[in-house]
Amino acid sequence: MTQYGFLGLGIMGNPMAANLVRAGFQVVVWNRNPAKCAPLVALGARQGGSPREVAAACDITFAMLADPAAASEVCFGPEGVLEGIGGGRGYIDMSTVDDVTARTIAEAVAERGGRFLEAPVSGTKKPAEDGTLIILAAGARALYDEAAPALDTMGKKRMYLGTVGQGARMKLVVNAIMGGMMAALCEGVALGQKGGLDGAEILEALDAGALANPLFRGKGPMLLQGEYPTSFPLKHMQKDLRLAVALGDELGQPLHCIAAVNETFKRARMAGHADEDLAAVFQVIKQ
Amino acid sequence: MTQYGFLGLGIMGNPMAANLVRAGFQVVVWNRNPAKCAPLVALGARQGGSPREVAAACDITFAMLADPAAASEVCFGPEGVLEGIGGGRGYIDMSTVDDVTARTIAEAVAERGGRFLEAPVSGTKKPAEDGTLIILAAGARALYDEAAPALDTMGKKRMYLGTVGQGARMKLVVNAIMGGMMAALCEGVALGQKGGLDGAEILEALDAGALANPLFRGKGPMLLQGEYPTSFPLKHMQKDLRLAVALGDELGQPLHCIAAVNETFKRARMAGHADEDLAAVFQVIKQ
Amino acid sequence: MTQYGFLGLGIMGNPMAANLVRAGFQVVVWNRNPAKCAPLVALGARQGGSPREVAAACDITFAMLADPAAASEVCFGPEGVLEGIGGGRGYIDMSTVDDVTARTIAEAVAERGGRFLEAPVSGTKKPAEDGTLIILAAGARALYDEAAPALDTMGKKRMYLGTVGQGARMKLVVNAIMGGMMAALCEGVALGQKGGLDGAEILEALDAGALANPLFRGKGPMLLQGEYPTSFPLKHMQKDLRLAVALGDELGQPLHCIAAVNETFKRARMAGHADEDLAAVFQVIKQ
Amino acid sequence: MTQYGFLGLGIMGNPMAANLVRAGFQVVVWNRNPAKCAPLVALGARQGGSPREVAAACDITFAMLADPAAASEVCFGPEGVLEGIGGGRGYIDMSTVDDVTARTIAEAVAERGGRFLEAPVSGTKKPAEDGTLIILAAGARALYDEAAPALDTMGKKRMYLGTVGQGARMKLVVNAIMGGMMAALCEGVALGQKGGLDGAEILEALDAGALANPLFRGKGPMLLQGEYPTSFPLKHMQKDLRLAVALGDELGQPLHCIAAVNETFKRARMAGHADEDLAAVFQVIKQ
Repeated sequence: MTQYGFLGLGIMGNPMAANLVRAGFQVVVWNRNPAKCAPLVALGARQGGSPREVAAACDITFAMLADPAAASEVCFGPEGVLEGIGGGRGYIDMSTVDDVTARTIAEAVAERGGRFLEAPVSGTKKPAEDGTLIILAAGARALYDEAAPALDTMGKKRMYLGTVGQGARMKLVVNAIMGGMMAALCEGVALGQKGGLDGAEILEALDAGALANPLFRGKGPMLLQGEYPTSFPLKHMQKDLRLAVALGDELGQPLHCIAAVNETFKRARMAGHADEDLAAVFQVIKQ
Repeated sequence: MTQYGFLGLGIMGNPMAANLVRAGFQVVVWNRNPAKCAPLVALGARQGGSPREVAAACDITFAMLADPAAASEVCFGPEGVLEGIGGGRGYIDMSTVDDVTARTIAEAVAERGGRFLEAPVSGTKKPAEDGTLIILAAGARALYDEAAPALDTMGKKRMYLGTVGQGARMKLVVNAIMGGMMAALCEGVALGQKGGLDGAEILEALDAGALANPLFRGKGPMLLQGEYPTSFPLKHMQKDLRLAVALGDELGQPLHCIAAVNETFKRARMAGHADEDLAAVFQVIKQ
Repeated sequence: MTQYGFLGLGIMGNPMAANLVRAGFQVVVWNRNPAKCAPLVALGARQGGSPREVAAACDITFAMLADPAAASEVCFGPEGVLEGIGGGRGYIDMSTVDDVTARTIAEAVAERGGRFLEAPVSGTKKPAEDGTLIILAAGARALYDEAAPALDTMGKKRMYLGTVGQGARMKLVVNAIMGGMMAALCEGVALGQKGGLDGAEILEALDAGALANPLFRGKGPMLLQGEYPTSFPLKHMQKDLRLAVALGDELGQPLHCIAAVNETFKRARMAGHADEDLAAVFQVIKQ
Repeated sequence: MTQYGFLGLGIMGNPMAANLVRAGFQVVVWNRNPAKCAPLVALGARQGGSPREVAAACDITFAMLADPAAASEVCFGPEGVLEGIGGGRGYIDMSTVDDVTARTIAEAVAERGGRFLEAPVSGTKKPAEDGTLIILAAGARALYDEAAPALDTMGKKRMYLGTVGQGARMKLVVNAIMGGMMAALCEGVALGQKGGLDGAEILEALDAGALANPLFRGKGPMLLQGEYPTSFPLKHMQKDLRLAVALGDELGQPLHCIAAVNETFKRARMAGHADEDLAAVFQVIKQ
């Protein structure tokens, strides 16, 4: 029976690994702070001693780490994945990292005789719990196919996008559009409210027609209440907008609207809303 | 039994009136070019000789006209609505007009002893046929309530928004947000395509998650095919964006993002896409 | 000897009329509040009883009024210019008014047998005192030529721009560029200061090279001191930017940069800087 | 007598070195393609065999190289400056390089016992020939003072800005403002021309007042003629705008206007104007 590893049991990784275990997969888990392994072990997972050990023991090892630095550390650090990979075993990094980090890890894994797939996800805590993430994969095609049953347990949708780096790029495009939608919503609501319309009625009108979408449904009420419990931190959205503008520069794609959105989010970031939900951009728009 | 009038049987008015007749309402129809009355008469409507005659004969008269000029002509012109209204009879103008036109008609109708409701709709030809328009009403509250059965036949959703002018304002807010969403989609798709992603896969990723909405589903394929059969003319969207920016100026609401969107649509308008669907803004974004 | 009239003795009109008197021209002055005529009479001017009387008595009558409303009142009101003009006498309105007001006055003057020139000026109080205004004239060509000696006393530069309305349009273009330069200066200084550069040294570097200009020289120190004594009110600059964006819409000229500048000035206007000098836009840029 | 070295005899370096020789300084010159040394030798310079040899033989060595790559090669490459510097001798790099390159060179020179000054210039070919450059220096203060006579021969203005990197940063600020002024000019002229004004008269009106500046005087006629002989390549301006926006992101300084300017220049770059003068941005603005 296929053995799976799972490295990183944070807000996202914990429910993702739990979904695998509950679905009956054999999973070896590891986390920097080992205390977080207990709930998974209680569900039926086995605990591993290091990334090296997990990678060496499993056919396919998943990782879900906080940022590029953590992803690099877990791969290249002492007792890291690189020391255990090889023999055609698979490593699937679902963390959100930049192109360069993804390609660097991909090359190192391949040199050691392993196979690599980048697989960043679209979706936050709730979809991770519900197993309804969208998985944007790129890299080793055969590994993607072999991992399909596990991926389909964690997500409701998966796409294979080609060479390593294209997964990260797709995620950037999706997030840039999300930023644009959020800014349009906030400016529209602010305009309507200044013009005497009721905010809740604006949201109701939007939700009744062709613009209706889960983002507006989720974030709209935050605007009306002026409270922004963090699901996706504003500073991360601004970072993605900045990266999109920079990618536009590299590829020669002008982005007049997204550039204006980026500056607006930058103002919000500087005005003390960096760690609130991205919807807090409303605070600097409505003045 | 309540008698209803319907003035204006164009692309929108024709299916709206037909839905009323099919639902069993008694309807007197009128159109500038009387030939367009025939199909409605075939369904069971009666044909009126002039706006005056219809307004005088009916408890509630609807109008769906092309623009503010047509709406004014039908109301104030010879044999116009104004000559037939009075005695508490109702006039419900569902055309899209500006604040000033709406208020001018409202005052004139009231002076003659009639009741007035503005009721612009969100939605185009298909929702008009399907009876799934969104109706943004404002003005005489009692008239709104009395007309409810007919309004619910033409639309799937109706809102009462207060004094005359607020209906037009709500429509402007909704359309400004639509313009922002459209621009964000186009810039994102253009960026992704320049970066080697497949356009159809971008749309697929968007449609799987929190950004999924009917607008993207409807317009997205136009971007990939480079053909923009007109459902909502680009020049009308740009006009609404211009009006939103002007309203922001009047109310003191800065609109950095919508202003950038407006200039982008203006470029598209000048580049020969004025009469194509609003999705044709993609042509000047992707360069 | 040619008789000149001068209507309106405010911040601008007073020094302009004084320059004419000092240069030896025969001038009849009028002001709504007649007390303001005294200093001019002390210099050698004659005082007139009404705009009608001045226009009837003089070969050429100048006006310098606060806004379009005042300009219309002085022309069309009781005892107004229109009642005294005729017989080929000239009326030169140097107030800043919109196209429509300028053309309305021009037609009315012509119908009465008078000649009309619009002649808005570029420059504020100091150039008015120094006789160094820039005069942007349009309308009756012969009148422009006849008034040359007087115009050259009030300004250092005059241009004849064609039909009435083109003077106002030129002023709009100049002011839109001024707004763009001001925003660029403020963003550059704010960026430099956040990056550890000394504000005064930034101004020094700018003033040494190809970008050196009197606007930066005049406004730059305001940014460093954070005080904005009003020479050109910020709200007037924002109004001109709005009009420029609207003119761009009418003529089909996209203005991505000036639109962004307009929204930035709009933010400053709403943040309490409406009546300060336009340089106060720095307050919302530097955050 | 002080010995000076000069590395790099391109469009800028050649006239700068020539000015030094003509002023009576003792100068040893070097260029990658040695043929370019001949005119300088004819004027009285001595020819050096390598950067190492020049740096070792001279008290103060200037460099004026094409880009960061060339600046690094001349410093770190075989027979490079680093092998000859030491003993407190000075190296003054007048090339335009990024912060990182400047600091890397500065540290390496200091480690070898040399002294380093970054000294990028504002101004192009003509000011280089006329000795009217603006020199934005930062680094070793004593070296700056000792080099004063030579710097004052090459430039009309010099500023000492502190630690290495601040010279590059000042240049970025100046160029970002230049980009903003250029965009404002182009949008204003395009708007005026569409509105029936004469382009030359717009330039005349601008040049008569507070906005008058050498940049508009130099670039304005290019707009009217539609020809853009390169003095400062558009792609370099766009690169500086991009770096300014990125610096704003790093420092948390929103730049709504400069971001819009950047996207406009990006469009021009992609539309085939990359190698024309920056004034060619007019081509995509006027449509």
